[in-house]
Amino acid sequence: MPIRRVLAGLCAVAASLMLHCANAAPASAPPVPKTPTGPLTLSSQGSFFIGGRDVTSETLSLSPKYDAHGTVTVDQMYVRYQIPARAKRYPITLIHGCCLTGMTWETTPDGRMGWDEYFLRKGYSTYVIDQSGRGRSATDISAINAVKSGKAPVSSLPDLFAAGHEAAWAIFRFGTRYPDAFKDTQFPVQAQAELWQQMVPDWLGAMPTPNPTVGNLSKLAIKLNGTVLLSHSQSGIYPFQTAAMNSKGIAAIVAVEPGECPKVEDVKPLTGIPILVVFGDHIEEFPRWAPRLKACHAFIDALNAAGGKGELMSLPALGVHGNSHMMMQDRNNLQVADLILAWIARNTGATKR
Amino acid sequence: MPIRRVLAGLCAVAASLMLHCANAAPASAPPVPKTPTGPLTLSSQGSFFIGGRDVTSETLSLSPKYDAHGTVTVDQMYVRYQIPARAKRYPITLIHGCCLTGMTWETTPDGRMGWDEYFLRKGYSTYVIDQSGRGRSATDISAINAVKSGKAPVSSLPDLFAAGHEAAWAIFRFGTRYPDAFKDTQFPVQAQAELWQQMVPDWLGAMPTPNPTVGNLSKLAIKLNGTVLLSHSQSGIYPFQTAAMNSKGIAAIVAVEPGECPKVEDVKPLTGIPILVVFGDHIEEFPRWAPRLKACHAFIDALNAAGGKGELMSLPALGVHGNSHMMMQDRNNLQVADLILAWIARNTGATKR
Repeated sequence: MPIRRVLAGLCAVAASLMLHCANAAPASAPPVPKTPTGPLTLSSQGSFFIGGRDVTSETLSLSPKYDAHGTVTVDQMYVRYQIPARAKRYPITLIHGCCLTGMTWETTPDGRMGWDEYFLRKGYSTYVIDQSGRGRSATDISAINAVKSGKAPVSSLPDLFAAGHEAAWAIFRFGTRYPDAFKDTQFPVQAQAELWQQMVPDWLGAMPTPNPTVGNLSKLAIKLNGTVLLSHSQSGIYPFQTAAMNSKGIAAIVAVEPGECPKVEDVKPLTGIPILVVFGDHIEEFPRWAPRLKACHAFIDALNAAGGKGELMSLPALGVHGNSHMMMQDRNNLQVADLILAWIARNTGATKR
Repeated sequence: MPIRRVLAGLCAVAASLMLHCANAAPASAPPVPKTPTGPLTLSSQGSFFIGGRDVTSETLSLSPKYDAHGTVTVDQMYVRYQIPARAKRYPITLIHGCCLTGMTWETTPDGRMGWDEYFLRKGYSTYVIDQSGRGRSATDISAINAVKSGKAPVSSLPDLFAAGHEAAWAIFRFGTRYPDAFKDTQFPVQAQAELWQQMVPDWLGAMPTPNPTVGNLSKLAIKLNGTVLLSHSQSGIYPFQTAAMNSKGIAAIVAVEPGECPKVEDVKPLTGIPILVVFGDHIEEFPRWAPRLKACHAFIDALNAAGGKGELMSLPALGVHGNSHMMMQDRNNLQVADLILAWIARNTGATKR
């Protein structure tokens, strides 16, 4: 498909030019910044949960030692926050993707600074969540015990999913086939074992629709009286769904390689919110990724045509090459962070709420 | 059992007197300290995983969209750390209990400072873990998908457990029967909903023996070149098992209401490590708790008889009343923290490694 690739390349360049014209940003990407060092001063930090509902179960336990009957709370969302000494107006809420947790944004697999701390050191309060049903946000195991104790059929077991290393390799675009990496990959593949340690099973198929994370993000945005929702991959559609439900408190949306962009006919509720979609490199080499990028281009075009304020940032079009789907952990992760922070500053700096 | 209660009380007082004589500590408990305020300065922070093993599965997915065959990493342990500006010699590793995660030690259900930050502000580096198979440390869902896809019998489903609010009420000793609380309870029962949000299912019955957390704690202690292992409840036996395996790197053990103390015949490998066991109030009113306290008394006695350095700290014997099993979240949580920190200072301050 050489014509399609040429067209995609032209589109990316055009998008990049639009960005440059509209915002008078530099024509080339900023250099990879030095990792900030020295003491980190916080004004405060802590953690809490948002949302959840109480459900009664008869199958909490299979052991006579513990009561099988009782109430448990499910669908809540864990949030850990840190506030720097002189915080900018809008905190950034970091929303991880499939088969991962908030660890996504913390120390990288090869031990470098993650976006959670980098954003903080750049003056942004950060709120790192674990999606409902992932990490420190509880799952509901009642259905499994119900089957094991003969009270429910096998078909009622939850539909679970874990990504194997081999399949994740191509999904994360380290290379087209495990274990061969792109020569120019920015992902620290020598530390892949530390990424595999981060991965957790996905209970999405066992969760209500819409995913409780969507409503919980809205509650969080309102509680914070304004935040940038920054998503990744499988969570990409959530901030858009949150905004369609209630735009209150959503200062901007940054979607890092969303698994899905909103449909072009769904842009109307999003026109009041600055929106950035970021894609890395080697997209056209993956049948999973090329259509997603194309659909996100169409979404951004429709959004802008409807009076919205959208931008699709293609890293290769900015001269930044080799970025994987896990760009927040790539070797140049702070360079990508700088591009995103510059967009946030341009697009929320003047926003009064 | 009034005689037994009187004896238990005398034992507690005797233990307390022993503590006072041996260490010239004040005869009464310290006051509840003011919550520290002002900026918090860290020299660094981050997170990583310890341990884990790769397993091959044929049932990672039930959907044709994702590969069912592949390798996943399981049994690893998530660790988040913070290092204060001028850190004392030994970090404190915080190990949560049943049906909980590292959130145990963070902001309390009613929004006060947790032990993780308090210890930090007192100069201790803190390492907060999620036990293997809990929170951000992956579970293995292969067996569930194997049953759902008809490849394995129902009996091979993992044995899972979730604690209901009603049962947890008495296990956590907020009162003898849900929802009635002890008049003097220190637990902020008005914020109980925020505690229920923290609870997660327990995969212990599906984990290898010994629990991988035990070996992972040893790897962490060695990596840190010395740490205090501070456990709670179900994890109480783990640091002892870790020490019996390899005492390297274990500067001291603090067991907050361990579900189990080592048997008196197992004290030998523990004689070189300072050990503190802490119990709260209302123990004798619970058939679950009274025998545990008794067994821990016997363990400490046997440890000291064998030349060890053990102490059982009964909070009521020190004049500190109303503490629940969740004393790190109780209203006087910082008072209890001060007692523990004073013990740590006395028992590790002079230790050269």
